[in-house]
Amino acid sequence: MYLMRIGAPGAEKPVVRVDDGHYIDVSDVTPDFDERFFAAGGTALLADRVARGDVRAFAGERVGAPIARPHQILCIGLNYSDHAAETGQAVPDEPILFTKSPNTLIGPYDEVRIPRGSTKTDWEVELGIVIGRRTSYLDSVEEAKDAIAGYCVVNDVSERAFQMERGGQWSKGKSAETFNPAGPWLVTPDEIPDVKNLGMWLDVNGVRRQTGTTKTMIFDPYVIVHHLSQFMVLEPGDLINTGTPPGVGMGHDPQIWLQPGDVMELGIDRLGAQRQQVLGPR
Amino acid sequence: MYLMRIGAPGAEKPVVRVDDGHYIDVSDVTPDFDERFFAAGGTALLADRVARGDVRAFAGERVGAPIARPHQILCIGLNYSDHAAETGQAVPDEPILFTKSPNTLIGPYDEVRIPRGSTKTDWEVELGIVIGRRTSYLDSVEEAKDAIAGYCVVNDVSERAFQMERGGQWSKGKSAETFNPAGPWLVTPDEIPDVKNLGMWLDVNGVRRQTGTTKTMIFDPYVIVHHLSQFMVLEPGDLINTGTPPGVGMGHDPQIWLQPGDVMELGIDRLGAQRQQVLGPR
Repeated sequence: MYLMRIGAPGAEKPVVRVDDGHYIDVSDVTPDFDERFFAAGGTALLADRVARGDVRAFAGERVGAPIARPHQILCIGLNYSDHAAETGQAVPDEPILFTKSPNTLIGPYDEVRIPRGSTKTDWEVELGIVIGRRTSYLDSVEEAKDAIAGYCVVNDVSERAFQMERGGQWSKGKSAETFNPAGPWLVTPDEIPDVKNLGMWLDVNGVRRQTGTTKTMIFDPYVIVHHLSQFMVLEPGDLINTGTPPGVGMGHDPQIWLQPGDVMELGIDRLGAQRQQVLGPR
Repeated sequence: MYLMRIGAPGAEKPVVRVDDGHYIDVSDVTPDFDERFFAAGGTALLADRVARGDVRAFAGERVGAPIARPHQILCIGLNYSDHAAETGQAVPDEPILFTKSPNTLIGPYDEVRIPRGSTKTDWEVELGIVIGRRTSYLDSVEEAKDAIAGYCVVNDVSERAFQMERGGQWSKGKSAETFNPAGPWLVTPDEIPDVKNLGMWLDVNGVRRQTGTTKTMIFDPYVIVHHLSQFMVLEPGDLINTGTPPGVGMGHDPQIWLQPGDVMELGIDRLGAQRQQVLGPR
């Protein structure tokens, strides 16, 4: 199943995508794809409604993030062996955790705004995991599969000077408004033959900047969810950005930073593609 | 005004404290002290209801955190000059930001649970700031005063091994369940003559472990709110833990860690006192 939210910011309605041109409105089943929806059973609640049909045609509605603002956005750092090599950093022994403010979440085609005072705004195509149920102290990595509601594309936009030169913890460079485009779809695991073998890419102004595959993830989605569950309680609808493959602006020589007017396009096999125009500071 | 939430976990009702024995129920004005309440005007909404009276007596109800689960819990590290000296670390040039999972929030007298695998669970009495309105890019430190709804006592419980020996970012040691007791009250700024001159203390098993004053804060509440507003959008109801004075377990020689059965008592002038019993891992 492919979940989407369409409509104006803050007034999105939850739908199930049928194909590129059509959807089924499920707002009579749930007001949103939020913590309450996932806690109550998630996509299992939608089966009857989807079976009944009532297919509608998309009519140019804005596409929002495929989930409502989550309880938390967790991020894993340096999680691709080829990206770690690119930045000259050692492969970590266990997942590096940092966070983003949940209100950074925007739709996949919304504009990304460079923050005031920024000199080093950068891109990161990533596989996003959405948690499906309250999860704590998983006994095994295998159990993590049942805790995952689905996957989506995310762009973990980052301000490198804020992240690394302003006080020592990364969250400061990850939390500016518009810094977390997600979607267009939340794709349930049954639609994905092998989440550990998905190609991913990101272009800036039509130039390919990131090329990767989830094959080179150091910690796979199940390991990440199992690991995080030992340190905190994951809530239904929580979003986890799982790290980025090589090719971020910081990794180029010379380094490349986003400028007003730039266009980012990015995608992951089976999860769809995004496109964001970059705006200057407001 | 002194805001409180009383009742079972997840079913607290919002009240205004009159004195140690009495309160006014304001649940007919707002269902909770949450983002929506603060965005709509906060305590200004309660004036009529409070003026009308209908004072009731406390009847042994549990006291919850004085605010609902916030959009985010932000924390400032190493923010007391005497605490920085104690840990042998340099005074930071600007506020060090890290985060806690919002679902760590509990009431001031609830039990604190040592996480599984913990060897170094520690205490931190702190001044908590609650944000009163959507706040971004404040032009001046002075403006931050209008963005603050009130203050409360928080215990920024921390697992030092998780924080510093498990991947390099602090959030991993700050987010275990029960790790953020708050309250008993959210105190509005008009009740506090000088927020930069409040004594604070923490005892473990009746032994004084932390003694401090907000006088030795490196970055005061207004500087903190102004600073954070340059990096992210603060939402109404967001909680900011502003750092701890000397005397944490990590700062003792030999170091002292919390054990099951320990009792923490802590407080800040004019903001009330907390008491938590420590439980072993579940």
